[in-house]
Amino acid sequence: MEAMDYDVVILGCGPGGLQAAVHAARRKVRVLVLGRPGASSLARAHVENYLCVPGKAPGEELLRIGREQAAAFGADFREEDVVRMEGPTEAGGFRLDLEGGETVLATAVVVATGVQRRGLGLKGEKDLVGRGLSYCVDCDANFYRGRRVAVAGDGSAAAHGALTLSRIAAEVHLVTREPATSPKLLERLGEAGVRVLTGRGVAELVSDEQGLRGIRLDDGTELELDGLFVETGAKGAMELVSVLGVEMDPEKFTYIVTNKNQATNIPGIFACGDICGPPFQMAKAVGEGCVAGLAAADHVRKRRQEAGGGDP
Amino acid sequence: MEAMDYDVVILGCGPGGLQAAVHAARRKVRVLVLGRPGASSLARAHVENYLCVPGKAPGEELLRIGREQAAAFGADFREEDVVRMEGPTEAGGFRLDLEGGETVLATAVVVATGVQRRGLGLKGEKDLVGRGLSYCVDCDANFYRGRRVAVAGDGSAAAHGALTLSRIAAEVHLVTREPATSPKLLERLGEAGVRVLTGRGVAELVSDEQGLRGIRLDDGTELELDGLFVETGAKGAMELVSVLGVEMDPEKFTYIVTNKNQATNIPGIFACGDICGPPFQMAKAVGEGCVAGLAAADHVRKRRQEAGGGDP
Ligand SMILES: Cc1cc2nc3c(=O)[nH]c(=O)nc-3n(C[C@H](O)[C@H](O)[C@H](O)COP(=O)(O)OP(=O)(O)OC[C@H]3O[C@@H](n4cnc5c(N)ncnc54)[C@H](O)[C@@H]3O)c2cc1C
Ligand SMILES: Cc1cc2nc3c(=O)[nH]c(=O)nc-3n(C[C@H](O)[C@H](O)[C@H](O)COP(=O)(O)OP(=O)(O)OC[C@H]3O[C@@H](n4cnc5c(N)ncnc54)[C@H](O)[C@@H]3O)c2cc1C
Repeated sequence: MEAMDYDVVILGCGPGGLQAAVHAARRKVRVLVLGRPGASSLARAHVENYLCVPGKAPGEELLRIGREQAAAFGADFREEDVVRMEGPTEAGGFRLDLEGGETVLATAVVVATGVQRRGLGLKGEKDLVGRGLSYCVDCDANFYRGRRVAVAGDGSAAAHGALTLSRIAAEVHLVTREPATSPKLLERLGEAGVRVLTGRGVAELVSDEQGLRGIRLDDGTELELDGLFVETGAKGAMELVSVLGVEMDPEKFTYIVTNKNQATNIPGIFACGDICGPPFQMAKAVGEGCVAGLAAADHVRKRRQEAGGGDP
Repeated sequence: MEAMDYDVVILGCGPGGLQAAVHAARRKVRVLVLGRPGASSLARAHVENYLCVPGKAPGEELLRIGREQAAAFGADFREEDVVRMEGPTEAGGFRLDLEGGETVLATAVVVATGVQRRGLGLKGEKDLVGRGLSYCVDCDANFYRGRRVAVAGDGSAAAHGALTLSRIAAEVHLVTREPATSPKLLERLGEAGVRVLTGRGVAELVSDEQGLRGIRLDDGTELELDGLFVETGAKGAMELVSVLGVEMDPEKFTYIVTNKNQATNIPGIFACGDICGPPFQMAKAVGEGCVAGLAAADHVRKRRQEAGGGDP
């Protein structure tokens, strides 16, 4: 089977990958975009804070529009994941194995794989996302003005989320097995009127056709709620690139470290979006995608010149 | 006259400043946005490469939509420039003098003043922007597929612009008084078929109702053109912040240096968009604006806590 050959291969078709594709393709290099729209964090989101797209735009629609833009500038698409990456080869490029068994050769790679939010793993969870269940206080807090909400999680992300919500919602619970937060922060939670329920976890999501109605904790407590925020931190899908020696953040080892050009420590590998760390926002992913796409295209041109082929 | 008091004051209402305003205002801090929509680089642009806004969106319209979004989240607006900045005060804040004579106090400042592109200073120049005259090859090259274009400028930006255009346009001239580029680059210009006209400048813009028709050089040469690109480099409006000791890029001393949080070396001063350096693109300005707006709001909250006031 012959390998496909591209200048720039982009892992991920969320907002970061799509904006990278737009900017690289406009630079007249051959661009392939991999990944699935449905696997983007945006797929189930409603976005009201991305500049110049007013209203609560459905993420699915945004992903479709962005895809059409990138395709119009010449980017190719394959709805497949990369399962293995090798390189740099002697010529400086990379070899990517797709889930379907095919191989792609790339001069430059843009990693825009986002982060996997670790859910609660409860029955009905997936269906309730966007209907009372959220994984992002910063994104969705405003939809719960004057309502009753709970935050589930042990880290400071959950505690901070509860604080933020205390300024917006009417009633805020923090459900935490063992709060891994400073005593100072716990004190502030109390002052802000957050009800902290320690030593407990969420056992069941209570819902009807409208969406989430409440939760049942594992000690039997029932809470009537309009919203539940799950803030257990974010885990990157990094296994792919770490074998290549791409540098990760030293603290959590979950995010890719890049410079101002969105270049990693491995020449030819760029990254953008959630995989580069917080804030997890579409606007940030798009900004980094623009820079990564241009930098990847520049890298390709430089390689061509070094190879003596000139710049066609 | 009493000073106005805000948590976050944003200098600039281009895409960087507006996205910063959206993200800061959603964090429930008091936000004031200064500057003029008409002075944004976007005002005369047509954008086709900003994700999820397809077509050739008029910049004026984009600025209006973004402004409405920020206002809806609670940001205030004043169409005035800052003429002087002082700080940090003992309390850690800043004092901004507006052109109209009023004063604003700010806990955090976001500098989103963009860059001033130095034009040719020729008759009719302003009116021809977007109608055959452009200050940005990366932005507008694609509109000149198969057409006749010239680039005016002496630096490597102009020479690189001409190279980029040689892959798109049918005929490319580089008008340069004294090319400040490497011999290697000049060689490549020749190979790419760019006609380099040295020792000359643009003396006159020839136009009709449709827009630019050509140029006359100061040695009398006339060129019939569909497009003229002016690439004389970009100068930042930095005087304001440099007196505060804000760190600039060591090479050109025109861009503000920030970290990943868009924070400068002066606590409480953040920056985003073109003023932080290239690429000069709306997507990048928006991405950095999102980060700067969130970071500025965080700074305000931290200051409140330190002041013992708690987090309202
Ligand atoms: C419920 C929810 C609501 C949100 N609301 C907002 C909001 O209101 N405003 C806002 O700005 N942000 C919001 N966000 C955050 C926003 O969705 C993300 O910041 C954004 O999608 C990040 O973009 P990205 O391109 O980095 O990654 P993603 O959009 O997550 O895309 C990741 C892509 O990588 C692909 N991929 C993964 N692994 C591989 C592999 N091995 N090979 C190939 N491809 C791979 C996936 O298929 C997917 O296409 C929300 C998120 C969630 C979950
Ligand atoms: C002709 C043209 C075409 C372009 N086409 C594209 C394109 O197709 N795609 C793309 O992505 N980008 C394009 N760009 C670039 C894009 O417009 C810029 O990258 C973007 O506008 C930068 O945003 P910004 O917020 O950093 O600054 P700007 O949008 O330039 O805004 C600067 C703001 O700062 C304010 N300001 C300045 N000084 C002060 C002061 N002292 N006090 C208060 N306020 C002040 C101004 O009033 C203005 O509101 C184009 C630019 C031009 C000139």
